[in-house]
Amino acid sequence: MLTFGSSSITIVAVIAVIGLAALVCAAALRRQVLAAPEGTPGMQEIAQGVQEGASAYLSRQFRTLALFAVVVFALLFLLPGDGGVRVGRSIAFLVGAGFSAAIGYLGMWLAVRANVRVAAAATRPDGRADGARIAFRTGGVVGMSVVGLGLLGAALVVLVYRTDAPAVLEGFGFGAALLAMFMRVGGGIFTKAADVGADLVGKVEQGIPEDDPRNAATIADNVGDNVGDCAGMAADLFESYAVTLVAALILGKAVMGEQGLVFPLIVTAVGAFVALLGVLVTRVRGSENGLAAINRGFYISAVVGALLAAVAAFVYLPSSFAELSGTAELGDATADPRVVASLAVVIGVVLAGIILWITGYFTGTTSKPTLHVAATSRTGAATVVLSGIGVGFESAVYTAGVIAAAICGVFLLAGGSLWLSLFLVALAGCGLLTTVGVIVAMDTFGPVSDNAQGIAEMSGEVDEEAAQILTDLDAVGNTTKAITKGIAIATAVLAATALFGSYADAVSTALGEVAERGAGLVPAMLSFEIVSPVTLVGVILGAATVFLFSGLAIDAVTRAAGAIVFEVRRQFREHPGIMTYEERPEYGRVVDICTRDSLRELATPGLLAAFAPIAVGFGLGVGPLAGFLGGAIGAGVLMAVFLANSGGAWDNAKKIVEDGAFGGKGSEAHAATVIGDTVGDPFKDTAGPAINPLIKVMNLVSLLIAPAVVMLSVPADANQAWRIGIALVAAGIAFGAVIMSRLRAARVDREQADETAGVPAR
Amino acid sequence: MLTFGSSSITIVAVIAVIGLAALVCAAALRRQVLAAPEGTPGMQEIAQGVQEGASAYLSRQFRTLALFAVVVFALLFLLPGDGGVRVGRSIAFLVGAGFSAAIGYLGMWLAVRANVRVAAAATRPDGRADGARIAFRTGGVVGMSVVGLGLLGAALVVLVYRTDAPAVLEGFGFGAALLAMFMRVGGGIFTKAADVGADLVGKVEQGIPEDDPRNAATIADNVGDNVGDCAGMAADLFESYAVTLVAALILGKAVMGEQGLVFPLIVTAVGAFVALLGVLVTRVRGSENGLAAINRGFYISAVVGALLAAVAAFVYLPSSFAELSGTAELGDATADPRVVASLAVVIGVVLAGIILWITGYFTGTTSKPTLHVAATSRTGAATVVLSGIGVGFESAVYTAGVIAAAICGVFLLAGGSLWLSLFLVALAGCGLLTTVGVIVAMDTFGPVSDNAQGIAEMSGEVDEEAAQILTDLDAVGNTTKAITKGIAIATAVLAATALFGSYADAVSTALGEVAERGAGLVPAMLSFEIVSPVTLVGVILGAATVFLFSGLAIDAVTRAAGAIVFEVRRQFREHPGIMTYEERPEYGRVVDICTRDSLRELATPGLLAAFAPIAVGFGLGVGPLAGFLGGAIGAGVLMAVFLANSGGAWDNAKKIVEDGAFGGKGSEAHAATVIGDTVGDPFKDTAGPAINPLIKVMNLVSLLIAPAVVMLSVPADANQAWRIGIALVAAGIAFGAVIMSRLRAARVDREQADETAGVPAR
Repeated sequence: MLTFGSSSITIVAVIAVIGLAALVCAAALRRQVLAAPEGTPGMQEIAQGVQEGASAYLSRQFRTLALFAVVVFALLFLLPGDGGVRVGRSIAFLVGAGFSAAIGYLGMWLAVRANVRVAAAATRPDGRADGARIAFRTGGVVGMSVVGLGLLGAALVVLVYRTDAPAVLEGFGFGAALLAMFMRVGGGIFTKAADVGADLVGKVEQGIPEDDPRNAATIADNVGDNVGDCAGMAADLFESYAVTLVAALILGKAVMGEQGLVFPLIVTAVGAFVALLGVLVTRVRGSENGLAAINRGFYISAVVGALLAAVAAFVYLPSSFAELSGTAELGDATADPRVVASLAVVIGVVLAGIILWITGYFTGTTSKPTLHVAATSRTGAATVVLSGIGVGFESAVYTAGVIAAAICGVFLLAGGSLWLSLFLVALAGCGLLTTVGVIVAMDTFGPVSDNAQGIAEMSGEVDEEAAQILTDLDAVGNTTKAITKGIAIATAVLAATALFGSYADAVSTALGEVAERGAGLVPAMLSFEIVSPVTLVGVILGAATVFLFSGLAIDAVTRAAGAIVFEVRRQFREHPGIMTYEERPEYGRVVDICTRDSLRELATPGLLAAFAPIAVGFGLGVGPLAGFLGGAIGAGVLMAVFLANSGGAWDNAKKIVEDGAFGGKGSEAHAATVIGDTVGDPFKDTAGPAINPLIKVMNLVSLLIAPAVVMLSVPADANQAWRIGIALVAAGIAFGAVIMSRLRAARVDREQADETAGVPAR
Repeated sequence: MLTFGSSSITIVAVIAVIGLAALVCAAALRRQVLAAPEGTPGMQEIAQGVQEGASAYLSRQFRTLALFAVVVFALLFLLPGDGGVRVGRSIAFLVGAGFSAAIGYLGMWLAVRANVRVAAAATRPDGRADGARIAFRTGGVVGMSVVGLGLLGAALVVLVYRTDAPAVLEGFGFGAALLAMFMRVGGGIFTKAADVGADLVGKVEQGIPEDDPRNAATIADNVGDNVGDCAGMAADLFESYAVTLVAALILGKAVMGEQGLVFPLIVTAVGAFVALLGVLVTRVRGSENGLAAINRGFYISAVVGALLAAVAAFVYLPSSFAELSGTAELGDATADPRVVASLAVVIGVVLAGIILWITGYFTGTTSKPTLHVAATSRTGAATVVLSGIGVGFESAVYTAGVIAAAICGVFLLAGGSLWLSLFLVALAGCGLLTTVGVIVAMDTFGPVSDNAQGIAEMSGEVDEEAAQILTDLDAVGNTTKAITKGIAIATAVLAATALFGSYADAVSTALGEVAERGAGLVPAMLSFEIVSPVTLVGVILGAATVFLFSGLAIDAVTRAAGAIVFEVRRQFREHPGIMTYEERPEYGRVVDICTRDSLRELATPGLLAAFAPIAVGFGLGVGPLAGFLGGAIGAGVLMAVFLANSGGAWDNAKKIVEDGAFGGKGSEAHAATVIGDTVGDPFKDTAGPAINPLIKVMNLVSLLIAPAVVMLSVPADANQAWRIGIALVAAGIAFGAVIMSRLRAARVDREQADETAGVPAR
């Protein structure tokens, strides 16, 4: 029996304290942000509207999701497992979900207060540096909170459950991932429905600028930035932290025993220092490109993080696996644990650096691919769309390629031991995440400065120079947002690869238990070999789930944006005074429509993600389910990066034209890039980022149900009936949700057709 | 030792004669087509230009590809294998490639003569039925030739090589698939570069109609339809036939022995009758929707095909597997071979029917999804693009889902025997292909009537009614083209799934040989388990190859279309008389640019497809290579259907608006759908259809190299060096091609920038 010594308890307790300290740092940074001046009354009034809309949306979203969480909480009790662990896992699920929600709420809460302060700062003499500092510190609060809550949660679970912690942590990670997925989807639909709707009527039809106060959708657009890009992103990163840590701890216990439950926490604690360092050293100098500042901050913190992790490995770990109490079969592992562990962390850090570089190259305003997309605007919108898709595909391939190379590198390190390689993959994920602090902080630039620009424009109280400052900050945000998504999806691949090991372990443990009872099993259901037709069917279905999920998310945005367009058009038509500034548009109605539609639409992709693996697992078996996960990971990483980067490239291609290239604002080239940008909106901010939590949710669901699937794979009549029944119910729920969504779409189509019928053609 | 009796020889000889008879039927149909009147001298002059351009392109393409074929021919000799088989395989490779090229050339040759006859027919009193008949018979020639050459080639190989036929047939299938892939890519780039280029300048900038003779790109556009949609499609379908047959024969030998080498040929011979029946019964009645006629023709021939195949099974096969001489381990297979074989064929036929229905539903002009895409044109081009992408994703998921369901169904039939299930999957593929005759025939509607419309428009000698007839035929073609692609990709999945079995067999045979020599092997390289990190890396890389291939094809079109746009603009600028009909545009220059660019661009995706599996196989091992193929199949089927169906939906959404919906021609809604259609062009006619041969090429390459990979996986220094060396060279070639393509893209960007610099802004 594995023991958990007092020195381990001390270290984990210290790590919990470090987690608390990170939260204190976050509180201190928050105070700094709130201390900045709040701007003119005009600005404050607008900010007030955004604050109310964002709070109202998140509160309603949480009420909806609470119901869902309670159902899952109950379902978790139905799964087989030891009593105490089962209770712990279900509670940990709620805690993980709660932390995820809290981080999201915090991100939103602060962002809606930071935006007006950044707008105010931009008008002051040293506006560029000041504005950047406030926006950046806002991100710092999110980053430190992510790290703090992640560390605290994991450390507490390890303290309470000791060697049973991995099973309980599955619940923690699952809760975090599930909540984050819903927040990504719901927030993503909200923000892009409002954004696309506002642009289509405002910019394209009426020819009024973005964020013009006459556009009834502007407040909703700004609310969206906060509930999607801030709240959703924060929850997503927390989930990445939590799940990667969980994977590392599960495998750490198997490979290193007691020390394996502590070392991943140490690496993550190093990440807390690195995040703080990153927040403190990253600042825009004078008029330099914001991306240069990020790169500097990133490389400094990455090098420090890698060094500290290596030091920790050499101080904490012994020089031979023989001195460790892991139970996994390592073969003739002659490797030095200190060396392989630190090299794995370094591979993770280097991977983060390469993804940063690739994403910056493909989406930055000064790099060739984006310039190429901008140049294709000379031949119209179609070529802009096509070239952006080309850029997205290509960058996705390179990103997937370097992630694959990192896994191969880790595999070589492990010298042929499967279990060691899986653990090292998880450690590489932890290494990757040590750098996330600085990236989150810069990521937050985007939505906060976008909002600040909106408030500035609507209040009409900001001069051109200040507006230019805010535009520049926003352009940097486009690239950092793409980088964050690249990093997030890399963690998804690494965590999923590692969790595959836990999955195989769970299956073989369950097989052993069934074999003890002397029962035979359906062999095809258990084959993990990819050459088996049903395993290959699993791969196809996994890839299909990613496509369906993406399509549903994009469709939801198109549909909701259509509703916004009709509402804004209606307001312009029925209140002609709006155009002449004599009437004030009803901003609230648009916010309400966005809220209603995104809450309605988030259920379908969410149910699909949760129930598809259940249907495949119980219907086809654990082998095909492994194929399903493989297909979802393979297609998912490419789809996620494709969607994020093509969206980023289109957004910045538009900025290049707006800065005067190919005819500048108002030219046909500009109109073409606006269309490209609009296509990219749901790509990069709705469907793309949601794939990261999607993969993790499906992995964790599979891990949780694996023992039950094996138990019901005994070809006795009663078991088979249960198994097929569960599969049918799950497939029915997933498919039923899709059908419901189709029916709703058909109704929306009809309603909008009716509405147009009564309207003179434009 | 397996024998090949005289009765088998007789049957196969009869099948070869049936193949010849199919070719005779094709010749008779061809004579009918050519007997139709050729139209006015004006029409003939235009048709002449198209004929010359198409012949010139294909001749140059074949010269380029001949070089490539010779290199591959030589490389095939380097692979391990028995001497006689190796020679036969290499020769069969050349024959397969030659047949593929011949079918493509024939398709083009006839289409460029049928187009003017259809245009002439449309002006006659009974124009609709007459035009449809000629276009349809043209397709009949292609369909019968595909079936005839496929049967003849496979039967001859079986007659000559008897029980060694499977190994030789690998070469036949590989040759067919490789040539078809290049023709799909090259022809696809040609046709869409010309089409997109013509539309961007003509329709969008100058506001002149499609196919207006003042547009210098019109002849190239019409040439493109023939070298892409006709020649490429014909080669592609021949390749689908050949590879599916090859897979069935390889597995048939293993599972059923002698009879297994004959039965798949019998099923395919049934397909020849069904194709002829389909061509004869399918005709458009009065003013009915063309799709209704296809559905009727399809269902009649499908039912007949399934019945005949079942009869053949019951006549030819024994009632127990014990009476068959297969060598594969079938477990306690108590199934009746007659029953399972005929049910597998029926599953294939039903699968074809469901794909027909799904594709028709998602891309037809009267069905909800396409109407929805058309409706989104009211909110502009961006929503059209987004809704089309949503439709594409969704339809891809359903198509992949039914293919997966068919595989599961076949798997259940096999009662748990892996080998039997693989053979039955291949038989289902043969069943699917019995229906292809009628679909090819209707598919050809599209390009031929598109061309006829072009000739009619350019000659100015066709009235409005005749133009409407041609437009209607073209709309049907959009849907049938999408259906053909769906069927083709389904054969790819079934063939690839079946070939997976041959792959595993080749690996285990090679492993046995290595084990006899007493050498150890690198275990990680051999793990087919998807939970192994390197196998998962294979899955990611396989999916990545599909994305990269698609991106390269789309980029190539964007780039080549850009060159066309600049050329056409230059002609309008330097020859103002063109616009007033006083000067004749230089059509030939645009044809030359298309020819040059597509031949230059086809190398990159082609090299990637051929060398990526070599790099993965030798670099990572046979297990990861299996993962690679799985990832490519999973991502490939979804990507192929997504690209084909979103393109089809956009094209028909445009037709809906042109028919008067949402403002009709010239409205903003119309402009929005034109943009959607242009985005869809390279999707549906370049990247999408090329994925089908891509998957097969990668599968066959893997199958061919598997023994060599195993031989070099012995961890002795010399072997390792060879293995890694080969992997690096292959990766270098694949990656080098991509880099070259990037550099060319950068140069094109610069040139076009220079050209714009000297031009006044439009």
